[in-house]
Amino acid sequence: MQSMRGLFITVEGGEGMGKSTNIACISDYLRARGVDLVVTREPGGTGLGEDVRNALLRVRPEPVAPMAELLLLFAARAQHLQQVILPALEAGQWVLCDRFTDASYAYQSGGRGIDAAVVRALENLVQGELRPDYTLLLDAPVSIGLERARGRGELDRFEQEALDFYQRVRDTYLQLAKESSGRYHLVDASEPLAEVQRQLLVICEELFACWAPRHRELPQRGAPRQ
Amino acid sequence: MQSMRGLFITVEGGEGMGKSTNIACISDYLRARGVDLVVTREPGGTGLGEDVRNALLRVRPEPVAPMAELLLLFAARAQHLQQVILPALEAGQWVLCDRFTDASYAYQSGGRGIDAAVVRALENLVQGELRPDYTLLLDAPVSIGLERARGRGELDRFEQEALDFYQRVRDTYLQLAKESSGRYHLVDASEPLAEVQRQLLVICEELFACWAPRHRELPQRGAPRQ
Ligand SMILES: Nc1ncnc2c1ncn2[C@@H]1O[C@H](COP(=O)(O)OP(=O)(O)OP(=O)(O)O)[C@@H](O)[C@H]1O
Ligand SMILES: Nc1ncnc2c1ncn2[C@@H]1O[C@H](COP(=O)(O)OP(=O)(O)OP(=O)(O)O)[C@@H](O)[C@H]1O
Ligand SMILES: [Mg+2]
Ligand SMILES: [Mg+2]
Repeated sequence: MQSMRGLFITVEGGEGMGKSTNIACISDYLRARGVDLVVTREPGGTGLGEDVRNALLRVRPEPVAPMAELLLLFAARAQHLQQVILPALEAGQWVLCDRFTDASYAYQSGGRGIDAAVVRALENLVQGELRPDYTLLLDAPVSIGLERARGRGELDRFEQEALDFYQRVRDTYLQLAKESSGRYHLVDASEPLAEVQRQLLVICEELFACWAPRHRELPQRGAPRQ
Repeated sequence: MQSMRGLFITVEGGEGMGKSTNIACISDYLRARGVDLVVTREPGGTGLGEDVRNALLRVRPEPVAPMAELLLLFAARAQHLQQVILPALEAGQWVLCDRFTDASYAYQSGGRGIDAAVVRALENLVQGELRPDYTLLLDAPVSIGLERARGRGELDRFEQEALDFYQRVRDTYLQLAKESSGRYHLVDASEPLAEVQRQLLVICEELFACWAPRHRELPQRGAPRQ
């Protein structure tokens, strides 16, 4: 039987695909339907996490060890889970998160070449059984996203990576979407924003129609679980 | 056959035991004997590591997840190894480090209660085979160290922990010293500083006498290894 916990939705995709832009539109839609929603992001989402985010994005004279990058991301994630995500889900709220562990597979494994088994071991260590219920993948050719990101101003440490890095990130995301087709929804992010948002709203409607009734049938907080 | 790499020495002990104070004295001694020595510290020792150190020590309104703390420490360590420790050891320099992985066993496992097997898994992931050759443990009753640390001014997030936390840290260090008695040297840090330093210099002399000749016999940098 389905537990009473809220729905955990993540938005993924490479640089400049429109994650942050579209999260605003998704959250407006869900809140208008009465969903009690927590919107957050990785890395970040907590005081410690935002410190880690700054440490990660800072452009440095010396190369950052890929393993250091991966462990920092999972450190921020452990804090984010304890402080924000798990309490919200347990209270029945939905959580909408800008990037999550799939980004570690895409960037640190696909992009930087760390063995996916290492990411999986950390995922199990930090998350236990928890996985997103639903993942929206904004996908478009790499050059489109980089052009958009570059339009925003100065580039952070990730945005300065070469094209082939981003190609590996994109390929890994598409591979994950294929392997986890149950929770993944692919959105063509090369379309004009209005069209992307139309697609996203269709998905949100499905999601709401499919989950909200099940959710309302669940026992109230504090009732025994099965 | 012994490789040409330098000696890796760590200094461990609870809050205020005199690690930083005595590292200055140890490094003076070794440098006077002609050792090419790199002195560094954890967490820190690199740009990224110092950012992590600040994030870790900052007093925060919300509790830090023990797993986040542990992963941050290993992230800083991965960077420290790649950027500082391994290049120095491989170039034949000695490395003297203020805290290392034993501190993760003492603080995050002993102090915070994380399973030691998790620390061991991260140790293997990040360090491979590398372990310190020599560890100086400055040990004294907890209250002595805390009094000394408190004499230095404002307390960081660790220094605000309760006495029983520090007791577990001390007990874990003493347990490690027992399990790894080959590399551990216990120094009674409750003695006056002059006496502590006298003990440390005796250890340094042994160390130098024992390692330096072996080290000099080794092939030059660039010669094939066996
Ligand atoms: N479909 C679209 N068509 C045109 N421009 C878009 C589209 N989607 C987003 N943008 C613009 O592209 C830029 C990047 O968008 P946004 O910051 O939302 O991307 P992101 O995926 O969050 O990037 P990052 O990975 O860096 O966080 C913004 O200026 C945004 O207005
Ligand atoms: N044997 C000693 N007797 C008296 N005072 C000492 C002794 N050793 C160190 N101190 C003093 O105790 C204080 C703490 O020493 P120090 O900062 O070297 O400790 P530490 O182990 O590096 O602490 P931390 O764990 O916080 O880094 C300093 O003010 C130092 O001068
Ligand atoms: Mg964004
Ligand atoms: Mg110190």
